[in-house]
Amino acid sequence: MILINGELKSTLAITDRGLHYGDGLFETIEVVLGRPVFLRQHLARLKTGCQTLKIPYPDETLLLDELKQVSTGCKQGVIKLMLTRGSGGRGYRQPEMLKPTRIIALHPYPDYPENFKTQGIQARFCTSRLGLNPLLAGIKHNNRLEQVLARAEWQDEFQEGLMLNLHEHVIEGTMSNLFIVKEQIIYTPEISVSGIKGVMRQIIIRIAEQNNIPIQEALLTKDLVLQADELFVSNSVIGIWPIRLLANKSYPVGKLTQKIMALIKGYKAKDSAYDIT
Amino acid sequence: MILINGELKSTLAITDRGLHYGDGLFETIEVVLGRPVFLRQHLARLKTGCQTLKIPYPDETLLLDELKQVSTGCKQGVIKLMLTRGSGGRGYRQPEMLKPTRIIALHPYPDYPENFKTQGIQARFCTSRLGLNPLLAGIKHNNRLEQVLARAEWQDEFQEGLMLNLHEHVIEGTMSNLFIVKEQIIYTPEISVSGIKGVMRQIIIRIAEQNNIPIQEALLTKDLVLQADELFVSNSVIGIWPIRLLANKSYPVGKLTQKIMALIKGYKAKDSAYDIT
Repeated sequence: MILINGELKSTLAITDRGLHYGDGLFETIEVVLGRPVFLRQHLARLKTGCQTLKIPYPDETLLLDELKQVSTGCKQGVIKLMLTRGSGGRGYRQPEMLKPTRIIALHPYPDYPENFKTQGIQARFCTSRLGLNPLLAGIKHNNRLEQVLARAEWQDEFQEGLMLNLHEHVIEGTMSNLFIVKEQIIYTPEISVSGIKGVMRQIIIRIAEQNNIPIQEALLTKDLVLQADELFVSNSVIGIWPIRLLANKSYPVGKLTQKIMALIKGYKAKDSAYDIT
Repeated sequence: MILINGELKSTLAITDRGLHYGDGLFETIEVVLGRPVFLRQHLARLKTGCQTLKIPYPDETLLLDELKQVSTGCKQGVIKLMLTRGSGGRGYRQPEMLKPTRIIALHPYPDYPENFKTQGIQARFCTSRLGLNPLLAGIKHNNRLEQVLARAEWQDEFQEGLMLNLHEHVIEGTMSNLFIVKEQIIYTPEISVSGIKGVMRQIIIRIAEQNNIPIQEALLTKDLVLQADELFVSNSVIGIWPIRLLANKSYPVGKLTQKIMALIKGYKAKDSAYDIT
């Protein structure tokens, strides 16, 4: 099911600036029993992106209504919510009157094996480097060629690839954020010049702080990552996947990783943001 | 008139990766008397982009046939030729069998006043900085949020804005390449970590070299640009626009600028690439 500006459709006007320039934002939201999970956090990040790109944030009542239409009756799935600057003429200049395009599409929940969560995944380092762009770092915009190129480096041999930026700092996975544990402290890469601040990343930081688990943002080199005691990646669909193998080095599914996983489970159960059903 | 994979259409499948990730390339081509100008050069750059992004370059006979359909009967216009990686599922991973999308749209020639060419334009420096990304620099891909944000900095007070990158080097205009003349030598910014190698830029470099006019790529600071004897910008639609005012400093429409303009005129008259009509 796909709603474009509230209408059931499967095609988009060729003039949409989302197509021409990647001029838009998106959110990937898990749906469980007809409810989008962590919706308040997703909409907050969308709003931050709108402020950065100067795209008007949609009427929230309308948006919630459309999200409800798409989620209702879905046992488990994934919503991709996209907001583009809307249609325009040729050229970078935007029209005086913006009419952003809302695209809300429901996808099946991916059939990841359960043991990715319990046993961990195999990861690699990508050779493609993330560029540096403080203007756009953090938000989930539609200029994603770096991720596309990095993901094309392997097929099924690994479940995720970690990306370094031009400064040779490890920033994130192609579709996830990274956390490492070293001597009972959790570190996650600083997202200031490259990378996306994932909703699950922000939740993990908050949960750790609320539970007095030391957590901090840091500049991480490849060596620091490889010397970690535990490693895990996160996103809104997978939650947390421990990394059990990285660059041929083995890691345990550690105590702190398991603790954060349990805390997320509790936090998710209590998530009552925008009860749109 | 718009052809999508050869069919007359004005909408695109919502699953197209051009929309989701800016996962594509484009060319902006002038059409004069039914013929796309400098077509060979545009297709060569498209091919380079395809190699970088690993998008299969289309069957050229097919592409030329579609370009002919769109150009025929057009006195003066602009073709936007776009090539995306085609449709895919949710996620950065590309489908095993790629079916790229060809979009060829004819637009009216913009009604720029003739005196932009003869008297020059007013330009400014943008505050938005271009990021650094050697992987993507040079090619004309669809990840263009930097240009969108820079172009939103002003309305009609200027005709172009010059962009610096994070290293504080002047790289290009939002829709053009930059050339400066200093003591009878032409300099144009090096495009290695930021910016687009415009087709007109490459033609100007070639023309200058063929006519023994000293030209070189260089790292240009804002001060160096401001101290130039002559300044001009170029792209495939405007050709050359001299800059007559930049940051409140006046510049003449200089001898070397006029010489390059005349040489382009001759080069264009001889352009016989792919006589598709």
